[in-house]
Amino acid sequence: MSNKEIVYTVRVEFGDCDPAGIVWFPNFFRWIDAASRHFFHQCGVPRWEETTKTLGVIGTPLVDTHTRFVKTASYGDTLEIAVRIAEWREKSFVQAYRVTRGADPILECEEVRIFGGKREDGSLRALPVPPSIRALCE
Amino acid sequence: MSNKEIVYTVRVEFGDCDPAGIVWFPNFFRWIDAASRHFFHQCGVPRWEETTKTLGVIGTPLVDTHTRFVKTASYGDTLEIAVRIAEWREKSFVQAYRVTRGADPILECEEVRIFGGKREDGSLRALPVPPSIRALCE
Amino acid sequence: MSNKEIVYTVRVEFGDCDPAGIVWFPNFFRWIDAASRHFFHQCGVPRWEETTKTLGVIGTPLVDTHTRFVKTASYGDTLEIAVRIAEWREKSFVQAYRVTRGADPILECEEVRIFGGKREDGSLRALPVPPSIRALCE
Amino acid sequence: MSNKEIVYTVRVEFGDCDPAGIVWFPNFFRWIDAASRHFFHQCGVPRWEETTKTLGVIGTPLVDTHTRFVKTASYGDTLEIAVRIAEWREKSFVQAYRVTRGADPILECEEVRIFGGKREDGSLRALPVPPSIRALCE
Repeated sequence: MSNKEIVYTVRVEFGDCDPAGIVWFPNFFRWIDAASRHFFHQCGVPRWEETTKTLGVIGTPLVDTHTRFVKTASYGDTLEIAVRIAEWREKSFVQAYRVTRGADPILECEEVRIFGGKREDGSLRALPVPPSIRALCE
Repeated sequence: MSNKEIVYTVRVEFGDCDPAGIVWFPNFFRWIDAASRHFFHQCGVPRWEETTKTLGVIGTPLVDTHTRFVKTASYGDTLEIAVRIAEWREKSFVQAYRVTRGADPILECEEVRIFGGKREDGSLRALPVPPSIRALCE
Repeated sequence: MSNKEIVYTVRVEFGDCDPAGIVWFPNFFRWIDAASRHFFHQCGVPRWEETTKTLGVIGTPLVDTHTRFVKTASYGDTLEIAVRIAEWREKSFVQAYRVTRGADPILECEEVRIFGGKREDGSLRALPVPPSIRALCE
Repeated sequence: MSNKEIVYTVRVEFGDCDPAGIVWFPNFFRWIDAASRHFFHQCGVPRWEETTKTLGVIGTPLVDTHTRFVKTASYGDTLEIAVRIAEWREKSFVQAYRVTRGADPILECEEVRIFGGKREDGSLRALPVPPSIRALCE
């Protein structure tokens, strides 16, 4: 397990909310994806355009997500998303998120992601976790 | 378990895709949420504005989602989302989705949702599953 | 002026609406962009990946939009977006949209778009309108 | 013309970009709408739930937008959106936006918005500009 935990901050906007006046849940996944990329950026991992050239890594596509929603949020709220790598596997990794508003828990999420490469035919495959990226993130 | 399975069809658009040229995953949750509402609509459940008045039900907020992504999709694809209620509980239900592109499996998702009511203070609570809605959906 | 007018149909979903219960306006631009691409697709213009190789055209970036909102829409509505090319210029074109719900006018939009190419440094430039594409669309 | 100009800051994320690697334009309208609300919030205008009760104002629906896109943006960019009220009319106002990335102009936008109220039948109408809100914003 990695010790690094990096926080990404989100302002909830009016347009992020649905007719019930609460955040429409797909928006949480927008922010989680941004928090995932922010984690790598803060660790020093270059843009995916660059890793495409150097490592064949086009990004970190999602393979599996399990998310539990605890409390609702609405516009005007500021959310903090604490991100860490919970587990490194050979060809994937588990990225974990805790979303809070002050002391309130909002949601918890664990994802399995891969470092994706493209085959000749354009389809996606899981590359072995690049040691250079793992070293930056631990 | 309910026998009803209702299919919602999605056209993937250019703007649904990310710089890697594949669907950006939060968009799948947009479509899953639309497929959820479409299921209730096809079963004859009225708009949430109406159920708010008649049953105190403002909608079906998500409590838990577990989603496995199998193949990627891109713009020009037509996806079918087969939706059913996998389980009725006292104060929640499990809604299940299978997303396919022709014979290709794209993703599978199981959600726990509630029939949400609002407390005096505006916070959300799970109502007992309304028998009238359950009867429409079985 | 071109004679071709091609209609793109949109179902408005719950999540497309804001706390006021009406479509949150950026979603109209999602649909307009999809209707723009749909127009070219129906005219027989290939995917942008292909035109990137054959013509250097990566897509049709927006340069200018002028949009007038007439009536609101909400979930459950079906909208029709009628699209045409109102004018061809040397290095740009005007694409025009009329969005209706049955007999109700919802919005009108005129855009200036270009056929975009990429310079060596990755920046975007307007290419002369490719005669082969214009011929397909007239 | 008002003198107040309030800046809203945006981080462009990976998922905000399209297969061409640049911001997909409807996302600019997401940010512009957030910058509009941010302007009112910074001026001391309460949440729309409150103004619904006190003034009958449910929000500031868009009537007209004219937007010119100058340069593209991509993920990793930080954008500043400078917002002001360019003109007050009897039943509407013009809100103007200048989006920049450092010294680079990205886009310019002028909107006509109204203070929206709901009729008995749920349809929207333009209210006279509330003097209390105008006073806060000047």
